[in-house]
Amino acid sequence: MAELKNDRFLRALMRQPVDVTPVWMMRQAGRYLPEYRQTRQRAGSFMDLCGNPELACEVTLQPLARFPLDAAILFSDILTIPDAMGLGLYFEEGEGPRFKHPLRREKEILALGVPDPEQELKYVMDAVRLIRRELDGRVPLIGFSGSPWTLATYMVEGGSSKDFRTIKAMMYENPRLLDKLLATVAESVALYLNAQIQAGAQAVMIFDTWGGALTPDDYCHFSLQPMAQIIDALTRQHEDRKVPVILFTKNGGQWLEAMTDTGADALGLDWTTNLGDARRRVGDQVALQGNLDPSVLYASPEHIREQVAKVLASYGAGSGHVFNLGHGIHPGIKPENAGAMIAAVHELSRPYHR
Amino acid sequence: MAELKNDRFLRALMRQPVDVTPVWMMRQAGRYLPEYRQTRQRAGSFMDLCGNPELACEVTLQPLARFPLDAAILFSDILTIPDAMGLGLYFEEGEGPRFKHPLRREKEILALGVPDPEQELKYVMDAVRLIRRELDGRVPLIGFSGSPWTLATYMVEGGSSKDFRTIKAMMYENPRLLDKLLATVAESVALYLNAQIQAGAQAVMIFDTWGGALTPDDYCHFSLQPMAQIIDALTRQHEDRKVPVILFTKNGGQWLEAMTDTGADALGLDWTTNLGDARRRVGDQVALQGNLDPSVLYASPEHIREQVAKVLASYGAGSGHVFNLGHGIHPGIKPENAGAMIAAVHELSRPYHR
Repeated sequence: MAELKNDRFLRALMRQPVDVTPVWMMRQAGRYLPEYRQTRQRAGSFMDLCGNPELACEVTLQPLARFPLDAAILFSDILTIPDAMGLGLYFEEGEGPRFKHPLRREKEILALGVPDPEQELKYVMDAVRLIRRELDGRVPLIGFSGSPWTLATYMVEGGSSKDFRTIKAMMYENPRLLDKLLATVAESVALYLNAQIQAGAQAVMIFDTWGGALTPDDYCHFSLQPMAQIIDALTRQHEDRKVPVILFTKNGGQWLEAMTDTGADALGLDWTTNLGDARRRVGDQVALQGNLDPSVLYASPEHIREQVAKVLASYGAGSGHVFNLGHGIHPGIKPENAGAMIAAVHELSRPYHR
Repeated sequence: MAELKNDRFLRALMRQPVDVTPVWMMRQAGRYLPEYRQTRQRAGSFMDLCGNPELACEVTLQPLARFPLDAAILFSDILTIPDAMGLGLYFEEGEGPRFKHPLRREKEILALGVPDPEQELKYVMDAVRLIRRELDGRVPLIGFSGSPWTLATYMVEGGSSKDFRTIKAMMYENPRLLDKLLATVAESVALYLNAQIQAGAQAVMIFDTWGGALTPDDYCHFSLQPMAQIIDALTRQHEDRKVPVILFTKNGGQWLEAMTDTGADALGLDWTTNLGDARRRVGDQVALQGNLDPSVLYASPEHIREQVAKVLASYGAGSGHVFNLGHGIHPGIKPENAGAMIAAVHELSRPYHR
């Protein structure tokens, strides 16, 4: 493997000194880029794109060709694991993900198998290997997975949900059955992330999109605990390198202390939490990633710059901050506005790292 | 006016002793009730129902005929004010509210008038007067309004939004214009709530459904500050009675201290905040209202009872708690499950008030 030329992202995650604050964007390879939309059209369906390592590699690298980003993130979907479990993932245009076979009955949940990442999910590992080769050490590659709770919501509801009525009915009626489902998913996620690390991922991130829909107690039990089990099971040291883990619960700002106790290296924050307050709360236990409101990118470059400055000032001096949006970049954003944000981060953060 | 027979709700809001914890439900007059669906069908459109004081009174009283609720809430829509401003509210089936004339241009915003509640919104005041008469002192009547920020999101976006892209672009590009819009709406809301109090509302609640989509700084400036101005302008003492104000920001759990500083009598909480922690944070400055996850009502009465017990235990002993859901009751809930919740609150809370 090529020597890493830009290690700002990994250094910041380990709270080591950096020259400027590293920056990447959730969904940086995505629909806001015309070149992505072209590749996507060539691929056929969205899952054809995820399932083709060459095309997944191509779109992973697209934003790096445009912008001086400090990390690449594997292009894939969070629902590859339940798909590999046989639930039959498909996408309806404008409707989001759906499963042909949602899990409802106890028998189905107890029968659920743990996919072998180098078999059923080999296309993801092939993509990781190919991207690492093509990156040639320019920046580190982030692997990722959805959290067990987040994956379970789609698996039980059969798709996106606003009120999570089916899985919450299960949670309140039959919590032991939900525990069983989450344990199987957590085991699968741990194997999946470890396989990504083996294949070359230099950091991993767990996306807990829906943990914030729970009460504090239910969050701790049904979302955080399975994530903590995954973190315990991860290969944190691979060959000669440390592999940092980032934990992101959308709307999880009230629970940062509990998230810190999982042993994650960094927490992702959405924009509803003040970064400076978060830093005071977590102390020097974890790095922080975030947290510009993605809607700022609808404004003009000059106003984007102002808001970037506010986020940087909120974190303050010293390492331990990875700049990011508080959630994925919206499909309607102009690429030049994303570029203005990235340039502003590198330029305006320099004084904080003297 | 008839003497109030059940004043538990008002006493709890003022943190005075009560025999049991009072309970009501956001959207208690709504689609989960078959009798509501019948009246709604008879009325014609949803706005025909809101606009007809007799029918609005009828549906307001329906849940009280079924359940021993401790308060009634005016049946109306949060978007009556922008409708009265001439934006042309209408509802598309399954699509939520829409405005024929969303506000986009500076000229339109500067030209916006403040509706006279006893003229353009007289149908609401007539409903309040009629409901008070029909209630005959059984329980207090709650008046309400949407928050200026929440109303402005619909007025600028033209309807419901997921990312608030238009109003957030305005917020970041031209914050002074948004301030102007919010000031006009805040003035209108204050007049509207004061008119409801004059007409007979015995408590008022401000619903800030979308404040939780903002950064902490933007929440304080664009959502909380206009609400604080309204609270300052409210008739808190009407004739011989005190009129308590409840402030509810969905997803506002991180900002309770700032909300308390508005001078509100009570804060509404959604289920993502632990009620006991919230009580420790706000001390004896405000009462708290909430916060059962509305999805609990999909479970069986026996499990509903367990979750009610947890919420009551979380608040602990003493007055200052009004039991409610953390958001509106879902349309798919069985009425008997709502009844099980209400019965459990009254029964299980008694030991906390000895």
